Amino acid sequence: MIFKLTSFIRKSIMIIDGKKIRDEILEELKDNFEAIGGVILAVVWVGDDPATAKFVEYKKKVAEKIGVKLNLFEYPDTISESDLEQELKRLAIDSDINGIIVQLPLPAQINSEKIIALIPPNKDIDALGVETVMMSPVTAAIAEILKRHKINLLKNKFVVVGKGKLVGRPTAVWLAGEGADVTILDSKTEDITTCLKQADVIISGIGKPGFIVPEMVKNGAVLIDAGTSEQSGKLAGDIDSACAEKALLFTPVPGGIGPIVLAKLFQNLWKLSIQTK
Amino acid sequence: MIFKLTSFIRKSIMIIDGKKIRDEILEELKDNFEAIGGVILAVVWVGDDPATAKFVEYKKKVAEKIGVKLNLFEYPDTISESDLEQELKRLAIDSDINGIIVQLPLPAQINSEKIIALIPPNKDIDALGVETVMMSPVTAAIAEILKRHKINLLKNKFVVVGKGKLVGRPTAVWLAGEGADVTILDSKTEDITTCLKQADVIISGIGKPGFIVPEMVKNGAVLIDAGTSEQSGKLAGDIDSACAEKALLFTPVPGGIGPIVLAKLFQNLWKLSIQTK
Repeated sequence: MIFKLTSFIRKSIMIIDGKKIRDEILEELKDNFEAIGGVILAVVWVGDDPATAKFVEYKKKVAEKIGVKLNLFEYPDTISESDLEQELKRLAIDSDINGIIVQLPLPAQINSEKIIALIPPNKDIDALGVETVMMSPVTAAIAEILKRHKINLLKNKFVVVGKGKLVGRPTAVWLAGEGADVTILDSKTEDITTCLKQADVIISGIGKPGFIVPEMVKNGAVLIDAGTSEQSGKLAGDIDSACAEKALLFTPVPGGIGPIVLAKLFQNLWKLSIQTK
Repeated sequence: MIFKLTSFIRKSIMIIDGKKIRDEILEELKDNFEAIGGVILAVVWVGDDPATAKFVEYKKKVAEKIGVKLNLFEYPDTISESDLEQELKRLAIDSDINGIIVQLPLPAQINSEKIIALIPPNKDIDALGVETVMMSPVTAAIAEILKRHKINLLKNKFVVVGKGKLVGRPTAVWLAGEGADVTILDSKTEDITTCLKQADVIISGIGKPGFIVPEMVKNGAVLIDAGTSEQSGKLAGDIDSACAEKALLFTPVPGGIGPIVLAKLFQNLWKLSIQTK
């Protein structure tokens, strides 16, 4: 009896394959970028953090594959704020450059918001600036999954966990703008379990490994994990993988949202490139 | 005993006097507008609805008082969409005009979104366009009250009732962007009482007279009523006035949020005027 129930539940879970979705999007982008040619992405990297090195390497590989030239601008972590500002100003007005990414975090002596504000909106593919016209790549990745699986924005109860600038905030702002029933909270909210239990869709981006456990989730929920942290050298998400058993849809970490975010970053580059080319 | 308790509760209620706040803001704006001089507000009014006539009259009176020239552009309700578009395009490029308001609703033959999209962001004082850079006047009025009464955006639980473009949506988007714990719902949400009962701050904008009753509200809540509807010829809010007894802060209808919205509209005009003058 128990076995039967479990196998029934198992059958109904959809585990999102983020790499497959990423590759589909990149395939289309490749044709687009090759058709217009000469799109250049500037990546600003201060310091020599090995985790950042990996991200940069990954972007480089993808860029190469889809016909985008990635120009890497490397600076020592001792660079002064004003020197970095000068560099950003130069990239901002360089008409050959279609997109600018500043790898975060920046060293302590530099005010990140000041630097990010120097990326002009029409080159801000990370959608980090105040005047951005683009959707944040993480939010766009989440929207892509919801759309592919026909999750109705107006008929479901959304809970967004986390209020960070990369995940929670832009995603909550997007959902609110779309007219969704959405509750926004963070790991410090008191009655978090009560809130989560009511959610049809949970989107998490707090960066606390395994914070959301099966007891907090209702059966048949859509679980989207956009929180990534390192746990004993391995990437871990906010949502305990045991929750998958209760889920209608589940995005694993790694391999769920992450790869799609990268594709959305390049999709933003594409959208801005055709505006200026 | 009962009397004593009641009088204690009564003492702790703060009923917002929106007219007083409006006048304070207008006083300051008057000095500002007079200092730069020659600010012109265009009001586009299609048809002859008497309710709209009252609003236009009110704006005119205020404009006159603070040294703004209000130019009224009146059109018959039979005007075609393309003719109205032409008029808007003319106002958009007229460099003498600092702000444009299109009185809503527009007649059925006209696509309102299409018309509103023709207001350039730097003249869109109602903040209705997709690319607006301003805060919606209703949201700005709500923010003004929260700020004046030191309601912490990060330490309180907000519930926004309603998802309309004038109140709920922009206010929810603003709160989400500020990192508040906020739940957005509308009158059709199932467990609305449970949600409202947990709220430290309720902001309502659904336009259903007396929809929120005392049983739905916790003691000491901040109650902000931005819903306005007509009930037997009188203006009524979404929040039953009996709720005031339980509230820490209460905005009545009329005389609460409404007057401040008008002041915020002219504050937007001021902010955009100094950008272009």
